[in-house]
Amino acid sequence: MNTHELVRELREPAATKIVLLVADGLGGLPLQPGGRTELETAATPNLDAAARDGVCGLSTPVLPGITPGSGPGHLGLFGYDPLEYRIGRGILEALGINFPVGAQDVAIRGNFCTLSADGTIADRRAGRPTNEANKAAVERLRTIRVPGVELFVEPVKEHRFVLVIRGDGLGDRVNDTDPQAVGVRPLAAAGEDAAGARTADVVNRFVAEATKVLATEGAVSGVTLRGFATYPKIAAFADVYGLKAAAIAVYPMYKGLARLVGMDILDPGATLQGQVDTLKRVWADYDFFFLHYKYTDSTGEDGNFPAKVQMIEAFDAVIPQIRALNPDVLIVTGDHSTPSKMKSHSWHPVPTLLVSDLARPDEVAEFGERSCLRGGLGQFEAKHLMLLAMAHAGRLGKYGA
Amino acid sequence: MNTHELVRELREPAATKIVLLVADGLGGLPLQPGGRTELETAATPNLDAAARDGVCGLSTPVLPGITPGSGPGHLGLFGYDPLEYRIGRGILEALGINFPVGAQDVAIRGNFCTLSADGTIADRRAGRPTNEANKAAVERLRTIRVPGVELFVEPVKEHRFVLVIRGDGLGDRVNDTDPQAVGVRPLAAAGEDAAGARTADVVNRFVAEATKVLATEGAVSGVTLRGFATYPKIAAFADVYGLKAAAIAVYPMYKGLARLVGMDILDPGATLQGQVDTLKRVWADYDFFFLHYKYTDSTGEDGNFPAKVQMIEAFDAVIPQIRALNPDVLIVTGDHSTPSKMKSHSWHPVPTLLVSDLARPDEVAEFGERSCLRGGLGQFEAKHLMLLAMAHAGRLGKYGA
Repeated sequence: MNTHELVRELREPAATKIVLLVADGLGGLPLQPGGRTELETAATPNLDAAARDGVCGLSTPVLPGITPGSGPGHLGLFGYDPLEYRIGRGILEALGINFPVGAQDVAIRGNFCTLSADGTIADRRAGRPTNEANKAAVERLRTIRVPGVELFVEPVKEHRFVLVIRGDGLGDRVNDTDPQAVGVRPLAAAGEDAAGARTADVVNRFVAEATKVLATEGAVSGVTLRGFATYPKIAAFADVYGLKAAAIAVYPMYKGLARLVGMDILDPGATLQGQVDTLKRVWADYDFFFLHYKYTDSTGEDGNFPAKVQMIEAFDAVIPQIRALNPDVLIVTGDHSTPSKMKSHSWHPVPTLLVSDLARPDEVAEFGERSCLRGGLGQFEAKHLMLLAMAHAGRLGKYGA
Repeated sequence: MNTHELVRELREPAATKIVLLVADGLGGLPLQPGGRTELETAATPNLDAAARDGVCGLSTPVLPGITPGSGPGHLGLFGYDPLEYRIGRGILEALGINFPVGAQDVAIRGNFCTLSADGTIADRRAGRPTNEANKAAVERLRTIRVPGVELFVEPVKEHRFVLVIRGDGLGDRVNDTDPQAVGVRPLAAAGEDAAGARTADVVNRFVAEATKVLATEGAVSGVTLRGFATYPKIAAFADVYGLKAAAIAVYPMYKGLARLVGMDILDPGATLQGQVDTLKRVWADYDFFFLHYKYTDSTGEDGNFPAKVQMIEAFDAVIPQIRALNPDVLIVTGDHSTPSKMKSHSWHPVPTLLVSDLARPDEVAEFGERSCLRGGLGQFEAKHLMLLAMAHAGRLGKYGA
């Protein structure tokens, strides 16, 4: 029995509220031997108080040693096994530009390229066009029609765009048309099965038309396509947990990941305070609130240790406003670690705290990587966090008699 | 998706080196309440320094409470799920005498026995012959020919030998011919399927001939066979991890286990210093080094607590030479615990340390069973250790976007 079946069987209604605060890339590393991590360096009186009031631990996003992207990192926190549910590149690209991709869609990442007179690729990135040139070329592509399907073309930036094909019976088992080389022609699309063949046929027509409509666009004269992906078959959050859930995120990718599991997507503006204000405003309307904070990750990716420390402190500063709402369960965690030292996501477990009247206390007095090692949640797989959230919210009944 | 598929998908080339030091049966127990384990008793300044520089934890070889043999213990450390990959007794016996067993082989453990005039077993161990008498009897068995297959007979010691049948279409679903009783005849071999039946036919011919050729050998007058095992279908270490791997072991069993996963088997002579010298000599030629140290297990099996302490101290003494090579990842662990108190392998988790620039520090200041409980690796399944090794060596890319 998988955990979703278990939750469906055991869940019970309750008038309780769960807040999941995700500080993206929260975990880190010291820069020097004997040093402290970003979180250990930051002054976090409010998170430390929450750690004392609740129970702590460390979340393993996928498996020991496995570094997740944002997709698997968040699916795990939402209680979906990230090794079972995979989100294809095209779908993630579409989610990242806030395109409302759906169950009938195949989403594909497109690159503009420069074709020579003989049809071979002269520049795989079409001379990196401006975003304006990208939009102009996308407008051309939007004139293309292929019978039997709907086509959506959306600009990303520079040479990148997203193509979404909507129709019945489409599949994603299609080869990339991008040969990843210059001096050769783009590859024809071919399907590995009947549904893939149907997609490939649409794509080949689209590409032929694209070359015609782009003929006057200079360096932007052709397209290559890759990362064909259908919408993943994924049970809705409400169906699994019986929770009415709101996502309060600033960046499209995280809105998209929340939309993928059927959460309502709110628009909090661009600031953390705007997110907290939104949380307060809709407090009565939902059972579950996913609030995503981006800057702990982006500063880590930049390798900017002091900036990541500052971003953690800014995050800490809003904790009292959230605790003042008196959620039945408050969780603070991250989707993965992003050590400034590595300038990238990493596999290191993520400090996690859970505050609830039913949390069993431990001896953790501050919120940090080392202190959480002594926490009552131990080291756990991220996919089990929602079980803990549901239990502490009084929303899971007894298994067996 | 199993972890091997995941690693194949994510692995990236890197010019990094991983050293896996396996102190066999490393973990232990105190002899008396309130006492220390062997490892806690030993003076291990170099392992303690490594514990401070790196990250510690405890490895569960198979599952809580499950005591592994050497085969599953090592397969886990090599990243092969010991519950998925099973190595039959006959294959382990062949590996243990350094016989180069291969994919076409069925390996079988043989016992010499004493047959009465009526063909029933009078002594199941043929009066425990000397090794010389064993070899003489094996020479007789080597004269036996069965059409269509190659036969190999190898002495082990006393009454034990190994029979390997090499040929096409052989199977291992064959009953033991050893009735495990005296006063009854050895059982005829029978196959549970077509391939087993083919093996059984060869075996019955072999046994009939054996009785004839041993007629003049006195007490060594018959044979019984058990533990029929084909070569396991197991992916090569290099194919899974992309690592060129060397095994530096003294004892045949561990060479055999490393050969099973396709490591190169080096010959370091009979001493730990010889092993370390071999490591230095081939340092440039490999990515991964498995060094096996036997005496922490054998002294534990003897129930000799002070000798195990001494063997741990001798192991500690070579650590600086290995760290001087500056491996990107150095791991010290064991394949299982062997408490002197129990004089046997046990299920207790195994102290483990990992040193790497990317290891997240913890608060462990000495290498021991209790101190590792506070380690950053937590308690982990041995089969995940290779994921951690690969990650810390910069050899695993990101999972999902």
